[in-house]
Amino acid sequence: MNDHQTRLSLEDAWTLSIDVLEQNGFSQDQAAAIARSVMAAQRDECHSHGMYRLLDCVRTVRYGGVEPRAVPEIHEKAPGVISVDARGGCSLLAFETAREPFIEKARATGVAVLAVKNAFHFSALWPEVESLANQGLVALAMTPSHAYVAPAGGHSPLLGTNPIAFAWPRPESEPFVFDFATSVVARGEVELHRRAGESIPEGWALDETGQPTTDPSAALAGALLPFGGHKGAALSIMIELLAGPLIGDRLGHQTRPADGSDEGAPQHGEFILAMDPHAFLGTGVATRLQQAEALFEGITAQGARLPSQRRYGARKRSQAEGVIIPQKLHDELVKLRDPS
Amino acid sequence: MNDHQTRLSLEDAWTLSIDVLEQNGFSQDQAAAIARSVMAAQRDECHSHGMYRLLDCVRTVRYGGVEPRAVPEIHEKAPGVISVDARGGCSLLAFETAREPFIEKARATGVAVLAVKNAFHFSALWPEVESLANQGLVALAMTPSHAYVAPAGGHSPLLGTNPIAFAWPRPESEPFVFDFATSVVARGEVELHRRAGESIPEGWALDETGQPTTDPSAALAGALLPFGGHKGAALSIMIELLAGPLIGDRLGHQTRPADGSDEGAPQHGEFILAMDPHAFLGTGVATRLQQAEALFEGITAQGARLPSQRRYGARKRSQAEGVIIPQKLHDELVKLRDPS
Repeated sequence: MNDHQTRLSLEDAWTLSIDVLEQNGFSQDQAAAIARSVMAAQRDECHSHGMYRLLDCVRTVRYGGVEPRAVPEIHEKAPGVISVDARGGCSLLAFETAREPFIEKARATGVAVLAVKNAFHFSALWPEVESLANQGLVALAMTPSHAYVAPAGGHSPLLGTNPIAFAWPRPESEPFVFDFATSVVARGEVELHRRAGESIPEGWALDETGQPTTDPSAALAGALLPFGGHKGAALSIMIELLAGPLIGDRLGHQTRPADGSDEGAPQHGEFILAMDPHAFLGTGVATRLQQAEALFEGITAQGARLPSQRRYGARKRSQAEGVIIPQKLHDELVKLRDPS
Repeated sequence: MNDHQTRLSLEDAWTLSIDVLEQNGFSQDQAAAIARSVMAAQRDECHSHGMYRLLDCVRTVRYGGVEPRAVPEIHEKAPGVISVDARGGCSLLAFETAREPFIEKARATGVAVLAVKNAFHFSALWPEVESLANQGLVALAMTPSHAYVAPAGGHSPLLGTNPIAFAWPRPESEPFVFDFATSVVARGEVELHRRAGESIPEGWALDETGQPTTDPSAALAGALLPFGGHKGAALSIMIELLAGPLIGDRLGHQTRPADGSDEGAPQHGEFILAMDPHAFLGTGVATRLQQAEALFEGITAQGARLPSQRRYGARKRSQAEGVIIPQKLHDELVKLRDPS
C-alpha cells in the first residue's frame, strides 16, 4: 500500500458500495446484487471490475442508461432454455433471480441455456460461472459489449470486447475458472492506464485513423484489437451471435454507453450455458472429476499457472486483510455517498 | 497446377478415396463416412484434412489403432444429452449415425449435446457443424487431440491441438463457420512443412528442450504453442475438459497416435452442442437472422474477411474444375489401392 491508496475492511467496503448505490437511486435488491459482484472483483483484486465500477453505475443511472429499481421477469422458452428480462436494470439481479430455476433446468435436461436480456452489463462474468460450478455444474458465459474492437483485418470498431468465462467444478478446491476479453485487453485496463497517465503497450489498439497507438486516450477513441488475430476475432463474432441475435438481444455495435457522449441504449444480453456432469456420467462423476485433476496437475507441474490461481490467492489475502483501493477512488465514492 | 501436382475430378477423387479405404479393411459405411469428410476438406482446399489424411487412416488401421468395421451405438443420457459410442471406429460414422436423433433432441429441448466417444478422430470439425447449420441450428464442436501443445508458461507437450468449430445459419448463403486449432497452427500444417522440406515460422513451436524452433521435425518432437498466449491456452483446457472428462472420455495426454512409435490407444471423444433458434426466438427467427447479417456486413465492409469465405470460394472452384493434389500423394494412394 502506498500514500495514494487506502485500505478498507470487506465489511466497510460492502457498506460503502451499498450506500453509494442506494443513495443514487438503486433499489435494495439491485444494489445488493451489484455490490456482491463489485466486491467479489475487488476482493479478488480484479480492479477493473471492482469498486471503480460503482462510478460507472452512478454515471449510467444519471444519464438514464439503467433502470435502478427494475424487477427482472423470468420466461420459460423451452425445456432447456430460460430467459430473464432485466427490464433495463443491471444484469446482476436478473442473473440472481433466474439462477435457481436455471440450475434446476440444467439438472433436469443435462444442458440448459439462460438468456439474460435487456440488461445494463458492466460486471465480470467469473462470479456467475463460479457460482454455478460451486453447485457442481460446468458453466460457460459470454456477453457482447459496445463496439470497441476492430475485426481481424479491419480498422474500425465493430465488435464488443466480448468476454467469455468458463468454470469447472473441482472436488477439493475452488473451481477452475477463466474469464477473458476477446480483445487483446479489457477496455477497463485501457481506462485504468488513462486514469494513471500511463501509455499502453503496442499491439493493444488502433487510433481513430486505424493506425497502431500506445496512447490510451487515442485507443479509447479508436479501436482495440482482438486477441490472437483471426482466431480471437472469430470467437468474438460467435459471442456476438450467441449473446445477441440468438437470445433476441442487441449486437455490440447496436448499443451505446450511456455517458452523455452518444445516443442509444446501453442495454444488451448475456448468454450462459450450464451442464450437469451427472446427466453425462451418472455415478462416474467422481472418477471423471479426478481425471480432470490430472490435467491441472500436468499444467502446474511444469511451472505454468492455472487461470484462476492468482485471483484465489488475492481472495485469501483480502479475506484476511481487507481491500486496498486508490485514495482518489475512495474520495469519489464518499462524495457520491454523501452528496452536498 | 505445377508438374508435381495432379488434377482429379470430384468423382474420381471420391472413388479413389473409397477404394483405398475399402481395400484396407474399412467397411462400406465407415469408408463412405470417412470419404465424405476427406473429400469435403479436399474440395474446400483444406489440404491438411484432405485426401492426405487417407494415409493416416491406412497407417492407423495397420497399427491396430482404429476398428475399421465398427458399428456405432447410440445411448440416450438425458433429455438434452445423447452419446454415441464409436466402438473404436472413426468418429465420422458415429457422428452421422447420431446426427438425426441429435437434431431432434436440439429441436425438442432448444439445446442439446452430442458426445462422440471412443473414436479415432482425424477430421476437420467444420463439415459437422456446417451440416447442423444447414438444418437451421447453431452448432459448436470441439475435440482434444494427442498431447502436442505446451500450456502457456510451460515447456512440455500436454494439451492437444484441440480444435473448436462453430456454425451459424445464414438465410441466403452458406453458414458462417469457423474451425481453428487452439495451437498457433494445426499439427497437420507442421507435418505438411516437414514433407515439403520447409522451415516453420518462429512462434509456432518449442523443441524437445523447451526452446523455440523453426525446424518442423524438432517441433513435431517438441511442443506446439497455444494461440493467443494464456487466453488460447485457457480455451484449450476447456476443450480438453468438455470433450474429455465431461463426456467420459480421454484427455489429450491420455491418448497416443497408433503409428508404432508408442503404446496406447488413439481413441478419444468429441463434444458437439446444438441450439435451435426457434426455441429461443419463436417467430422472431427470420428477423434475428437478418440482424446477424448486419454484423457480417460490418466486417466485410471494412475489408476484413469472414472465416469461411476463402473455403467457400475454393468449393466453387473445385465443383467446376475438380481438385488438385500432389503427384506424390496420388502415387501413394494408388499404391494403397492396388497393393502388390
